[in-house]
Amino acid sequence: MAPPRAGPRRRPGLVTLTSDLGWAYAAQVKGALLRACPTVPLVDLTHELPRHRIAEAAFVLRAMASSFPPGTIHVAVVDPGVGGQRAPLAIRCGEGSVLVGPDNGVLAPLAHALGDPRAYRLDPRRIEPHGRVGTTFDGRDLFAPAAARIACGEPLGRLGTVAPFQDRRIPEAVRGPRSVVGEVVHVDHFGNLISNVPSEWVPESPVGLAVAVGRRRPVGVPWVRSYEAMGSGRLGTLGSSFGTAEVAVAEGSAAVRFKARTGTPLRFRWSRAGVGATERVNSAPSLPRHRR
Amino acid sequence: MAPPRAGPRRRPGLVTLTSDLGWAYAAQVKGALLRACPTVPLVDLTHELPRHRIAEAAFVLRAMASSFPPGTIHVAVVDPGVGGQRAPLAIRCGEGSVLVGPDNGVLAPLAHALGDPRAYRLDPRRIEPHGRVGTTFDGRDLFAPAAARIACGEPLGRLGTVAPFQDRRIPEAVRGPRSVVGEVVHVDHFGNLISNVPSEWVPESPVGLAVAVGRRRPVGVPWVRSYEAMGSGRLGTLGSSFGTAEVAVAEGSAAVRFKARTGTPLRFRWSRAGVGATERVNSAPSLPRHRR
Amino acid sequence: MAPPRAGPRRRPGLVTLTSDLGWAYAAQVKGALLRACPTVPLVDLTHELPRHRIAEAAFVLRAMASSFPPGTIHVAVVDPGVGGQRAPLAIRCGEGSVLVGPDNGVLAPLAHALGDPRAYRLDPRRIEPHGRVGTTFDGRDLFAPAAARIACGEPLGRLGTVAPFQDRRIPEAVRGPRSVVGEVVHVDHFGNLISNVPSEWVPESPVGLAVAVGRRRPVGVPWVRSYEAMGSGRLGTLGSSFGTAEVAVAEGSAAVRFKARTGTPLRFRWSRAGVGATERVNSAPSLPRHRR
Repeated sequence: MAPPRAGPRRRPGLVTLTSDLGWAYAAQVKGALLRACPTVPLVDLTHELPRHRIAEAAFVLRAMASSFPPGTIHVAVVDPGVGGQRAPLAIRCGEGSVLVGPDNGVLAPLAHALGDPRAYRLDPRRIEPHGRVGTTFDGRDLFAPAAARIACGEPLGRLGTVAPFQDRRIPEAVRGPRSVVGEVVHVDHFGNLISNVPSEWVPESPVGLAVAVGRRRPVGVPWVRSYEAMGSGRLGTLGSSFGTAEVAVAEGSAAVRFKARTGTPLRFRWSRAGVGATERVNSAPSLPRHRR
Repeated sequence: MAPPRAGPRRRPGLVTLTSDLGWAYAAQVKGALLRACPTVPLVDLTHELPRHRIAEAAFVLRAMASSFPPGTIHVAVVDPGVGGQRAPLAIRCGEGSVLVGPDNGVLAPLAHALGDPRAYRLDPRRIEPHGRVGTTFDGRDLFAPAAARIACGEPLGRLGTVAPFQDRRIPEAVRGPRSVVGEVVHVDHFGNLISNVPSEWVPESPVGLAVAVGRRRPVGVPWVRSYEAMGSGRLGTLGSSFGTAEVAVAEGSAAVRFKARTGTPLRFRWSRAGVGATERVNSAPSLPRHRR
Repeated sequence: MAPPRAGPRRRPGLVTLTSDLGWAYAAQVKGALLRACPTVPLVDLTHELPRHRIAEAAFVLRAMASSFPPGTIHVAVVDPGVGGQRAPLAIRCGEGSVLVGPDNGVLAPLAHALGDPRAYRLDPRRIEPHGRVGTTFDGRDLFAPAAARIACGEPLGRLGTVAPFQDRRIPEAVRGPRSVVGEVVHVDHFGNLISNVPSEWVPESPVGLAVAVGRRRPVGVPWVRSYEAMGSGRLGTLGSSFGTAEVAVAEGSAAVRFKARTGTPLRFRWSRAGVGATERVNSAPSLPRHRR
């Protein structure tokens, strides 16, 4: 008897696409997916990630993809090592989602966020039975057809074999009693500096809050709840939509102001928590604050 | 007996997405929508509107969304006041479309264009029964799940209560016998200055047409039917795809040439209408001229 | 009895959209398509092609669209001559795909790649029975509704009449025994110079490879298999994802380095093929090498 899930599903699973390829190259990935599975529902997340930046891609992908429903297939192609030896992967997570892409660490933080990851090393000979001559566009020629077959219900065990994967983690901030040391993990398209400091590590109404960017001196900064509250051109710190603290310049670019980029250290310190802050932090330590 | 439309529809309604969030944040909105309604058809309009510019967003949204079929759900997140007191809205229009977003005026011109608007103030407690702690990303946490439930057929009366909405209008141009005074309401991605002057207010073949941008002196300008007719680097005026007159520099940027932006005044004047123009204007006053 | 395919199909055909319109104008095209056929599946390829560049659009469209499944409807709106005399076209290709857009050469290379093209000149009176007054946004008002009706199964013969089409070809490179002369046919969003030189015309491990860009002197350049192999800021030549040779600067812009653009001549020469190169070229002359 046929095993469950061995054949095509009635409705193919949802596939999301994330890359640093730009829209024109990404179009070829979409074509290859639809050629292998013409009714697969596709959702573009972005194709304009900063090029070849593994750590930043891993952070942004985790934030973008983790709000999707269980069972989604997430394809992520940020692949500076294409043509080299890194393995092609598909990772099934506990809640049924599958991550597809090169084994360079981009998928790992999302895999851990979704939980219970089990990785398969994709076998190109099973996915491209006729082979390729000299091509190294794995996004189109390997990951797209693999994702299409997964979306149509093919089990991962038919496309590859269980294997370990590169276990990159988002760098962790270090917490003191009245300070946190972290770093910029993403510069968004407004020039806001997104840190790896969980928003709830900074008290909600801190007194004497200051931020030091890179090797610069600390500058006093208000903790605000909205850009509007900052005033045009003014500096502020707030909870980002990634669940972490962010340094922003209202209607300006903090990245330009501080000459900062991904990897730049960020230190927050404050003299004491404001009224009501302790209670909030204690009652809901696991839920990030967001804005937008 | 169950009232009509009270339960989920067979096929969820089409949802369009418009924002100034950039693609990476918009991905989180899409994930939240699909989590609440996995088969909802999504169409991105744009996520790169100029940031926090309510008036311009309202103008562009009206133009983009009004060509969609009746029954479409349009989500628009341009929300400088997030975290503040502005109400979250869903507006049902006469032809069955629903507009979802903050009550800051972005939705109003589209609502009037679609006709017969009836607004509901969304109740976060009905949409997010478990609450949020400190987050202010309403696009993802409130508007997306609300839109998903509307797309699946849930009546607005279950998500909120009837309420007034902020009644912003697109600024109106003022018409003289041989002149019009308006303003720039949008600078498109080519740098063309899109005005609020209905194209048919300028005669089709005006003699002695001149345009004054901001406080600059009027300069003579041809009324053309295509960019091609202008000649590279040359100034021209034509009917825009928004149904209004536009000032453009062929293969260049009128915004740079005139240092103009949204809100910059624009005055057109002409000495007399050319041959055939009067007839065209009279016979079809309500239909805009477009190009592209 | 009704002829086969004369009525609407059960599931509308897939429609792809390519343009230089920017996302805001493209939204109006999508709305018009969905208004005419509310369940049509849409896939954006890109709306940010370099503006009004026919030759470049033709090259990129062919690369993007040719990986899509047979039966796809490709709409391409790069239309500097809108409002002029160029014909509106729909071209059915042998494998069932249909190309829709203005007759200015953008569609021709894709039509030839798909094979057996048969063009119809669209009749606006059959597509817009109530006419238009003065508008020239054919992407929204003519091509979108035509594509929607084709996607719903309407035969081309009902929308227009068989006609010739402008037969533009991608410029061809010229091959010598140890050199190739071609040109830049696309500058991608990284600034890489994509040539019209088939990758397999350059031997895989050429000795003494040099490239001359424009009227500059030849410079020695390695043939690499990945950007990573080049080293930051270094020049390299590799097989592009378009199947042709590309000149790139790792983590930089070759277009800026050489002040090159579409149409700039490119000459490759080498002193002899490296080990193993001849065999590869001989055994698989028709398959391009790719990267990414």
